[in-house]
Amino acid sequence: MIKLLVAGTVAYDSIETPFGKAKNVLGGSALHFTNSASFFTDVGMVATVGRDFKMDEIGFLKDRNVDMAGIEVDEGKTFRWEGKYGYDLNQAVTLKTELNVIESFKPKVPEEYKDADFVFLANIDPVLQSHVIDQIKFPKAVALDTMNFWIENKYNELIDVIRRIDILVINEAELREITKEHSLVKGAKKIMTLGPTCVVVKRGEYGVFMMNKEEIFLAPAYPLEDVFDPTGAGDTFAGGFMGYISNVGDMSLTTLKQAIIMGSVMASFNVEDFSINRIKSLEYMEIKERYSAFKRCMQFGEIEFK
Amino acid sequence: MIKLLVAGTVAYDSIETPFGKAKNVLGGSALHFTNSASFFTDVGMVATVGRDFKMDEIGFLKDRNVDMAGIEVDEGKTFRWEGKYGYDLNQAVTLKTELNVIESFKPKVPEEYKDADFVFLANIDPVLQSHVIDQIKFPKAVALDTMNFWIENKYNELIDVIRRIDILVINEAELREITKEHSLVKGAKKIMTLGPTCVVVKRGEYGVFMMNKEEIFLAPAYPLEDVFDPTGAGDTFAGGFMGYISNVGDMSLTTLKQAIIMGSVMASFNVEDFSINRIKSLEYMEIKERYSAFKRCMQFGEIEFK
Repeated sequence: MIKLLVAGTVAYDSIETPFGKAKNVLGGSALHFTNSASFFTDVGMVATVGRDFKMDEIGFLKDRNVDMAGIEVDEGKTFRWEGKYGYDLNQAVTLKTELNVIESFKPKVPEEYKDADFVFLANIDPVLQSHVIDQIKFPKAVALDTMNFWIENKYNELIDVIRRIDILVINEAELREITKEHSLVKGAKKIMTLGPTCVVVKRGEYGVFMMNKEEIFLAPAYPLEDVFDPTGAGDTFAGGFMGYISNVGDMSLTTLKQAIIMGSVMASFNVEDFSINRIKSLEYMEIKERYSAFKRCMQFGEIEFK
Repeated sequence: MIKLLVAGTVAYDSIETPFGKAKNVLGGSALHFTNSASFFTDVGMVATVGRDFKMDEIGFLKDRNVDMAGIEVDEGKTFRWEGKYGYDLNQAVTLKTELNVIESFKPKVPEEYKDADFVFLANIDPVLQSHVIDQIKFPKAVALDTMNFWIENKYNELIDVIRRIDILVINEAELREITKEHSLVKGAKKIMTLGPTCVVVKRGEYGVFMMNKEEIFLAPAYPLEDVFDPTGAGDTFAGGFMGYISNVGDMSLTTLKQAIIMGSVMASFNVEDFSINRIKSLEYMEIKERYSAFKRCMQFGEIEFK
C-alpha cells in the first residue's frame, strides 16, 4: 500500500541552459517529486500522459516501490514544456507550453491510494487540487504547491483549497503575491490563519524558509560550484521533504527540520544534470554524505566572548 | 591600547524608507562598524569629519572603550549622504552625495594604533586602503570592504590592495562583478588565489556566505517581521564579525563561524531602527539571546530515515 500520494504532471521537457540543451526529456512536477520521494517512502502517482509516452522510461521507479496505477494514459500527446535559462539560472523563460492531455485532466485517485497518510498536490489548477482532496480519506497531512498563474487567475479557488491543507510549499515571490506581505514572517503567519500549520518558502539559490506554529527554520541551498539545470528543483525538494516526513510518519518540529534539509539535499543533486538523470542514478550513501555536509555548512559553536 | 582599527567614513545621513524619514542622522561606515564592534573589543577609529560635526553625539562610544584620536576634524563640512529605499529595502537609491571633507581625506593612523592586531578597511578608495596598510605594523588579519564604484573605476588598485589583505568582506553582486563568476564558490576561490584566506559574502536578506581554505559556512539573515532601515547593515555586520574575531584573537574556522553569526546578530538589530539608534541602546543580554535564537533557526538533528 502506498504511503504518499502525489498528483501533478508528467511531461516531456525541452530545456536550454548556458551549459547545454536537452530535447524531449522526462519532466513534470509529479515525476520530479516521485523520483525524489521514492528514496524514502512508497509513492503512488496520479497524473496523465498521452499515447506517445514511453512508460518503460520510468520503469526504474518500480524498483523503488512506486505505484503507477494512478497514471492515466489518454488519447492525445503528453504535456510538453519548452524553456530557457539565462546565466543566473534563477528564472526560466517559457518558450512554449503544449498542454495536450493535461487540458482535460481530471485527477482520479485509485481506490487503493485513498488511505494514503500523506498527500502532495503539485502545481495544477486549484479546482483539481480540491477535487483530489475530496477523494482521499483521513490523511495525516496534505501539502500543496501552486504558481503565479493560479494566484492571478483563480485566486478564490486557490484560497479555498489552501483552507483545506496542512502545509503550503511555495516560492518566495508567490507567497508575497498571495499575501501582499513582503516579510516572509508576516506572510507565513497570514497563511496560517487560513488553516495550514506549516509554510515552506522556496528561495532558489538562497535556500528555504520554514515556519510552523512553534518556530522558524532557515536552510541555505547547498553551495555548488556549478548549477547545470534547475528545472524540477522545487518538486525534487518537495519530494525529499514529503518523502522524509512520510518515512518518519509525524510532523514534529524535529521531523520538519530534517525534512527541509532532506528536500534541500535532493534538490542540490537534481540541479547537477538535466531532467531526472542525477536523482535516477543516485545512491543512498550520497544522500547521507550530503546531509552531513549540510550540517557542517550550518553548524557553529556557543558564544565565547568575554 | 586598541585591538581593532577601522578606517572609513563618519557621516550625516538623510534617509527615507516606506516606514519613515530621518534627516541628518549619524551614519558612515566607520561609525556603524565601531558602534557594533565596540561590544566585543577595543576599537580605534580613523576617519575625518568637518567642523560642523557634533562630537558629543558619539561620546557614548567612549564608555565602550572606543578611541577617537584617529578622527581628524578638518575645515569644511562633514560627509553627507541622502538615500531612499523602496518597499523591498534591498537597494538604496542615492539621492545626493556631498563628499565635503572626504574629498581630501588621507587617512593618518595615530602612532598608538599601529600595533593593532586586527584592521578593517571600510569602503573607501582602494589607494587610501593601501595607504592605511602601509602604516600598520604586524596585524594578525586585515579585512576589506569595497563597492561597485571602485570595481568599475579603480579595478587595478583594488586588486592590488586585495593582494595585501586576509579577509574580503563584500556584497554578492560585487563579488560577481570583481571575479566575473556567477558561482560564489568559484568567485571566492578566485579571490583566494590573490592572497586572502577568507571571503565573506553579504547577501542582504538572504544572509551570509563564507569560505576559507577549509570549508564553506552559510548563515541566514535573522527572520524579522519588519526591517525598518537597512542603512549601515553591512558595516554593522562587519563590526560584529571583526569585533568578535578580535575578542577571541584567532582566525580558526570555529571562531570565523561564530563571528559570522555575531555579525548577523548585530546587523539584525541595526535594521530595526534608523541610524545607529538600535545598537546604541543595545544590551549584552539581547545579543546573547539573539545568538541563541539564530542557533534554533539553523539547528537540526541527524538523519533518521530507515
